[in-house]
Amino acid sequence: MQNYMIVVSYDGTSYHGYQFQKNALTVQDVLEKNIKKLYSKMIRVEVAGRTDTGVHARGQVVNFLAPDLIPVERLSFALNRILPRDIVVMEARIVSNTFHARRDATAKVYSYTIDNGQLPDVFNRHYAYHVSNPLDVEAMKTGASFLLGEHDFKAFQAAGSTVQTTNRTLFSLKIEKQEPFIILSFEGSGFLYKMVRIITGTLIEVGRGKRRPEEIKEILEGKDRKGAGKTAPSKGVCLEKVVYRSLA
Amino acid sequence: MQNYMIVVSYDGTSYHGYQFQKNALTVQDVLEKNIKKLYSKMIRVEVAGRTDTGVHARGQVVNFLAPDLIPVERLSFALNRILPRDIVVMEARIVSNTFHARRDATAKVYSYTIDNGQLPDVFNRHYAYHVSNPLDVEAMKTGASFLLGEHDFKAFQAAGSTVQTTNRTLFSLKIEKQEPFIILSFEGSGFLYKMVRIITGTLIEVGRGKRRPEEIKEILEGKDRKGAGKTAPSKGVCLEKVVYRSLA
Repeated sequence: MQNYMIVVSYDGTSYHGYQFQKNALTVQDVLEKNIKKLYSKMIRVEVAGRTDTGVHARGQVVNFLAPDLIPVERLSFALNRILPRDIVVMEARIVSNTFHARRDATAKVYSYTIDNGQLPDVFNRHYAYHVSNPLDVEAMKTGASFLLGEHDFKAFQAAGSTVQTTNRTLFSLKIEKQEPFIILSFEGSGFLYKMVRIITGTLIEVGRGKRRPEEIKEILEGKDRKGAGKTAPSKGVCLEKVVYRSLA
Repeated sequence: MQNYMIVVSYDGTSYHGYQFQKNALTVQDVLEKNIKKLYSKMIRVEVAGRTDTGVHARGQVVNFLAPDLIPVERLSFALNRILPRDIVVMEARIVSNTFHARRDATAKVYSYTIDNGQLPDVFNRHYAYHVSNPLDVEAMKTGASFLLGEHDFKAFQAAGSTVQTTNRTLFSLKIEKQEPFIILSFEGSGFLYKMVRIITGTLIEVGRGKRRPEEIKEILEGKDRKGAGKTAPSKGVCLEKVVYRSLA
């Protein structure tokens, strides 16, 4: 048996998120179904980040224990040949038997893409959230600066999740203009349920001049979801990368 | 009655091209159906470039004569509110009554996007043609240079079209690398049936080293479709812009 790690990109538009659900198609269903085809048996796949319905990935990471049947340098090719076109394996490698895609992740990078053109870009309608009001990127950057570092991010967590602690460390939050898009890049130790979308929704309100940038600090300290802004739609989110200390 | 010119962008993935066809959904069907909703009567729409199945547009131009019911500055908004999300009106203006979107066009700009990454970019699978073999862009540029100017482009025309002359002028053909993409931009007086796709397919063979760049000159002079390369798939084509002398 070998422990395989694969890096997966997917267009989440047609899926009810990553994780298995009753009566709804998920990325996990499709991955496990196709891995089963290769190995002629059901193989459980562990994932780094359980993405929501409509959320995309460029660098999702999964791992699974499988018999040593397919040379690792052929694994991406073998899977891509049978996977649907909206899921692509970008990389495959053998990792130590103790490696676990979620538990061993030390950081994750998520992006959020806002289409800030006057009219929506038709080719990015599934990958960007269209906001026609021109956003003040400098005000958004100032607002974002209050979130850097270790904080209790409870105010930016959606209801319905149970976690031991709502403390997380945000290593960086870059906001970049790429006309007509504005791209937010979050690198953090971990993210609470819908945290990327709630932070983005709140920063959009700052960008529109509906909130002062300093309110972000007050919201954070208030630790109350009601203090923060609207949850931005899932289609703007992409899991860009999962970081590991070592893959030896 | 006013003559309205509108600039339209669309994702051609779900359409059988621009022009009306029996038993197949086209962009023209959808535009005319929605313009009919606005004016409560059928209005014939003239188009600049009849794009093929799967071909996209950022700057398609159409015009139509309609009663002076909707202020022109509200027309884009009114149409975008009822159009499906894969067709977006970018601009609307009133033009002289003699203006005709196709007859008055002096040039058109088409792009062709090649995804030259080792593995396909999942988010561009409908907008780019994936070629995993690394292409020699310099060789492609040399090949392209033989096509500039006025020529008989018969060798690069697909069968099944009847035109008075196969002479066309190619003002420019730029080839640009935007990792992992290679983008070809064609500006010409007009284009023969599938000309952009046949030129691209032939230049890809040059980029793969299967043909010498100088063969492009020989193919052009041979005036025989069999001399040119394969037709690249339609999904890589986008009508970027239609040029007019004046819109007064």
